[in-house]
Amino acid sequence: MLNMHELGVVYRNIARTDASLADPLGDLGVATVHEALGRAGLMQPYMRPVYPGARAAGSAVTVLLHPGDNWMLHVAAEQIRPGDVVVAAVTSPCTDGYFGDLLATSFKARGARGLVIDAGARDVRALAAMPFPVWSKAISAKGTVKATLGSVNVPVVCAGALVNPGDLVVADDDGVVVVPAALAARTLEAARAREANEAAKRTRLAAGVLGLDMYAMREPLQKAGLRYVD
Amino acid sequence: MLNMHELGVVYRNIARTDASLADPLGDLGVATVHEALGRAGLMQPYMRPVYPGARAAGSAVTVLLHPGDNWMLHVAAEQIRPGDVVVAAVTSPCTDGYFGDLLATSFKARGARGLVIDAGARDVRALAAMPFPVWSKAISAKGTVKATLGSVNVPVVCAGALVNPGDLVVADDDGVVVVPAALAARTLEAARAREANEAAKRTRLAAGVLGLDMYAMREPLQKAGLRYVD
Amino acid sequence: MLNMHELGVVYRNIARTDASLADPLGDLGVATVHEALGRAGLMQPYMRPVYPGARAAGSAVTVLLHPGDNWMLHVAAEQIRPGDVVVAAVTSPCTDGYFGDLLATSFKARGARGLVIDAGARDVRALAAMPFPVWSKAISAKGTVKATLGSVNVPVVCAGALVNPGDLVVADDDGVVVVPAALAARTLEAARAREANEAAKRTRLAAGVLGLDMYAMREPLQKAGLRYVD
Amino acid sequence: MLNMHELGVVYRNIARTDASLADPLGDLGVATVHEALGRAGLMQPYMRPVYPGARAAGSAVTVLLHPGDNWMLHVAAEQIRPGDVVVAAVTSPCTDGYFGDLLATSFKARGARGLVIDAGARDVRALAAMPFPVWSKAISAKGTVKATLGSVNVPVVCAGALVNPGDLVVADDDGVVVVPAALAARTLEAARAREANEAAKRTRLAAGVLGLDMYAMREPLQKAGLRYVD
Amino acid sequence: MLNMHELGVVYRNIARTDASLADPLGDLGVATVHEALGRAGLMQPYMRPVYPGARAAGSAVTVLLHPGDNWMLHVAAEQIRPGDVVVAAVTSPCTDGYFGDLLATSFKARGARGLVIDAGARDVRALAAMPFPVWSKAISAKGTVKATLGSVNVPVVCAGALVNPGDLVVADDDGVVVVPAALAARTLEAARAREANEAAKRTRLAAGVLGLDMYAMREPLQKAGLRYVD
Amino acid sequence: MLNMHELGVVYRNIARTDASLADPLGDLGVATVHEALGRAGLMQPYMRPVYPGARAAGSAVTVLLHPGDNWMLHVAAEQIRPGDVVVAAVTSPCTDGYFGDLLATSFKARGARGLVIDAGARDVRALAAMPFPVWSKAISAKGTVKATLGSVNVPVVCAGALVNPGDLVVADDDGVVVVPAALAARTLEAARAREANEAAKRTRLAAGVLGLDMYAMREPLQKAGLRYVD
Repeated sequence: MLNMHELGVVYRNIARTDASLADPLGDLGVATVHEALGRAGLMQPYMRPVYPGARAAGSAVTVLLHPGDNWMLHVAAEQIRPGDVVVAAVTSPCTDGYFGDLLATSFKARGARGLVIDAGARDVRALAAMPFPVWSKAISAKGTVKATLGSVNVPVVCAGALVNPGDLVVADDDGVVVVPAALAARTLEAARAREANEAAKRTRLAAGVLGLDMYAMREPLQKAGLRYVD
Repeated sequence: MLNMHELGVVYRNIARTDASLADPLGDLGVATVHEALGRAGLMQPYMRPVYPGARAAGSAVTVLLHPGDNWMLHVAAEQIRPGDVVVAAVTSPCTDGYFGDLLATSFKARGARGLVIDAGARDVRALAAMPFPVWSKAISAKGTVKATLGSVNVPVVCAGALVNPGDLVVADDDGVVVVPAALAARTLEAARAREANEAAKRTRLAAGVLGLDMYAMREPLQKAGLRYVD
Repeated sequence: MLNMHELGVVYRNIARTDASLADPLGDLGVATVHEALGRAGLMQPYMRPVYPGARAAGSAVTVLLHPGDNWMLHVAAEQIRPGDVVVAAVTSPCTDGYFGDLLATSFKARGARGLVIDAGARDVRALAAMPFPVWSKAISAKGTVKATLGSVNVPVVCAGALVNPGDLVVADDDGVVVVPAALAARTLEAARAREANEAAKRTRLAAGVLGLDMYAMREPLQKAGLRYVD
Repeated sequence: MLNMHELGVVYRNIARTDASLADPLGDLGVATVHEALGRAGLMQPYMRPVYPGARAAGSAVTVLLHPGDNWMLHVAAEQIRPGDVVVAAVTSPCTDGYFGDLLATSFKARGARGLVIDAGARDVRALAAMPFPVWSKAISAKGTVKATLGSVNVPVVCAGALVNPGDLVVADDDGVVVVPAALAARTLEAARAREANEAAKRTRLAAGVLGLDMYAMREPLQKAGLRYVD
Repeated sequence: MLNMHELGVVYRNIARTDASLADPLGDLGVATVHEALGRAGLMQPYMRPVYPGARAAGSAVTVLLHPGDNWMLHVAAEQIRPGDVVVAAVTSPCTDGYFGDLLATSFKARGARGLVIDAGARDVRALAAMPFPVWSKAISAKGTVKATLGSVNVPVVCAGALVNPGDLVVADDDGVVVVPAALAARTLEAARAREANEAAKRTRLAAGVLGLDMYAMREPLQKAGLRYVD
Repeated sequence: MLNMHELGVVYRNIARTDASLADPLGDLGVATVHEALGRAGLMQPYMRPVYPGARAAGSAVTVLLHPGDNWMLHVAAEQIRPGDVVVAAVTSPCTDGYFGDLLATSFKARGARGLVIDAGARDVRALAAMPFPVWSKAISAKGTVKATLGSVNVPVVCAGALVNPGDLVVADDDGVVVVPAALAARTLEAARAREANEAAKRTRLAAGVLGLDMYAMREPLQKAGLRYVD
């Protein structure tokens, strides 16, 4: 049962999304996956990769943090399995640098594919060199303390999106989208169909065909009252 | 006559800025053009290129959009002529991803040199690969609907700047500036003079001459009361 | 005596931080230096380099500017000595482009290593080509006037951090940190110790050792009441 | 089962929170309820009442809206029962004025106690005169269209908080907090205990007793290393 | 001819909007006028009255200011005629307190009905006591200099809206809307019709009639695919 | 000696500003005091009173807090003497509600005149009822922990202004200004002179005299090149 209000607990057994879905959804990219999901699950656009070209897709290990306190990221590290993406929410807005090269080294050694954090990260140069992709709302060298319990693998709201542990997270230059585990397979199917469809459209548009004609928009536009003036 | 209050209309015949002015003004760059224009026409600094190094200059095809609705971008595509830059305003603040690789393919096929949009864009990786330069206030994978009429080629306020259809738009890493069509020729002249003047200044400054001396600032500073303390 | 309330004055003789400390602290980087200093002196995270990979470290020449007025940057140029970093504060929030390639040419000729400005900069392409590193809160082509006196080498608050003239400033991809001159030597010592310590930790973490074990966190977590649920 | 990804659906039968809990929780106020709930369920602090002194508590009827489109608020009106508070989320950030005096008249006639909307409202003067309390992130006269389907009574994320239909919403000058229906009774109990406890504390503090002594903080502060310097 | 790029000029003869239109449009309020105008001319919602209940309507005397410099407000005072509203734009974003009780005393003595400024104001207590209504984006005690020429009665973009001198400005608790002089009479007519229409609607809604029925929305909702689930 | 980098320390003996200066400076108000001080010491304009009409003036007891942790406010309470204003800074941006009616009761019992906090406050209704004036950057019901040491009576940067313990703080509807203790007497003198001067100006302006004439601006405007066009 969904309980977002529990602090001080670590759920060790979570139902991860079928791993074979992560790579193809990651390749299709955030914009296509978001469309295929019915335009849902997108985090706010202030979430940006800390270096250009970052990409990641995997099952969410969720973390709930307190402002200025990264203790639970260390607790979360133990729960990471290869292919996971860690998703960290904070109980109130904070830009501190919760995550740097040491934690990234640990997360990477555990098999994590990336971190999505609704707060700040640091050691950008090192993260890019490893590489270990991070999406955050800020870059900040400000360190954090280790004093207060949060939770691991509870549902969290991260940058406006609900993330349940085990959901599939896809992140790239366009942002971060969350696919509920139960919808991942059909989302992949829909995304592939969309992609196939788009390839054909792209060819026609590149040849100069107008969207007005390709999408048969002229009639609905006329009905809506669009006037052309010469 | 200027009418910013018309919805549901597409003006097909607009007076474009002389095409021969676009490339040299684009080469001179936004900062120099903005100065040459008398420090006017600059969009707010939140407008940023979606990939580094983007540059574009051309006549404005303007679009007025509703929040979350990109229908009129398809209508605008038909009005694009080679050398144009599309400038899109929204009737109220919105960060949605109105524009991605399909529309970019279409715009490029029509000869557009870029898009300036006071909202969001997506498919950043694809836009950089084409390349098709876009300046926006956000990057967002959030899709839009096609339900409500806006207008094409009416005057718009985009990121704080008034843009009339046919105005010359110059955009690069420093932002976006709008040159009224009637002022483009004299702005080019002024920009070239400024640039020539700056080259000489640059040489002197590089040799260690101080701006205090080169610009004869010491006397006005003294008159203004500047004190030096050892 | 500290006096932040003086306008129209230039202090010519300031006690710079020992130059031999700048390079090693710059190499250690902002995050490590900020930790070594006891987590103090960090500027707000909105301060970002205008091009990726920028790095600088040196003694602060401080400037107090008025909104939209860069006159004092020309006055400051004369006070620059090789190895300095100019730190510019504004009396109220402003995003104008106070600084571009001409001033950068002059500052570089005088030996400056970079500029930190709580306002805007322009000519980003040229700054990256020189290269001359700048950290700012905005990129804007908007020019400034030269009409009102500020001060040079008075204490300033820049992006939330107090900077006294002669303090050591370290800046990189993670932001900007200010080290009081009197603390620079011991900060370098502490930073080196921290770095040495981190190298060993990094190796262990890369081998899969958990921070939980390496930092002996399991007991304090248990005492704090952390529960594990299977 | 939780499904946040459904568009175009209206759930008519929702399990509302026991109505007898709303008034006492509303009287206790947002800050106390938030504490009693374990410091969870709070919306972001940008949510502000459109007039001072506004207060409301009731079961949530949720609405999912598109940017610039208030069609579903009319659909939601039919689902309101006396004692409800409508909670409206938007699929992407928008400040438009979705709600004014006509909808307020309708909502009030249906028995609604207030509206919480992660967007804009208008007709502030009329809302204050009725009175009909509204919490929003903006005040804007900008009207909306009625063109695209959202949903009613699906789970939504509103201003960073997950709201399930039927959850108890408490709002006042301090913001908005969401109490899951299943936790409402025990939250009331905890809030009352807290309040009783606070009354005694308030008396002691008013008499000059220090929190340091009342909460027995001196020893833990000393253990943490706090030093006093005369 | 429209020229937004002129600095250092004061246009003394402007065509004001018929004064008899100001009061009735002001009484109808910003939201109704904005709708009657076709949902155009609204300033960004960050423009707020400095005290609650402020209202004003009148012909625009426009001012273009530089950041941190209020010189032209003194120049503008001479151009005020009874019934005017001063609208002040700034060449780049600034929050300084350009306007306080002395200028308000002068503006009021000249017959001004209010000030709309895309920057800061101060002396809020005095402004409320006079009363002299001001809409601004900030409240700031920070003073300004008088050093650089702007212009009076040139077209300006203020908070995202184009304002030509003589346009009718209506401002209240819901924000600020600009009605082009040529459209003011027909806007009043449309606003009155809308208001009359709304009174009847308000009565029906207050009696419990649903907007779904009153606006005949059930059929289009059904066609759009809305499903009801019990 | 100034040391902003000390954590875990409470300075008990601070040199307060002469108490007889606080009331008259408070009566003169923030805008006048800020001018009299040479336009220095003003906090950023995001600092707002939590209820309208709040006013306070007194010697600063400073507090340095960690994000989400209000432990040191309890420590600070003991250091308050009648007439003090507590000024709280946070080591990184935070909007949490650090302060509510219990702490306000304690602070008031100790003789504090108000709180200035670069973070959030809560229990707005109770604070207004007491009354106990608070200036903050947010209102938030989000509670804080008591886990990490900060400091009391060290110099802090609060909302962009340097505050030394014992400085005089003046706050009202226009914001917050900090007067260094050593400058308080002469600032009062200057503020009174300014106020006396303004009364005469106000009378003349109210009689319709223009600032252009009263301040003799016509000649400098003409010299600067101002043109009038009929």
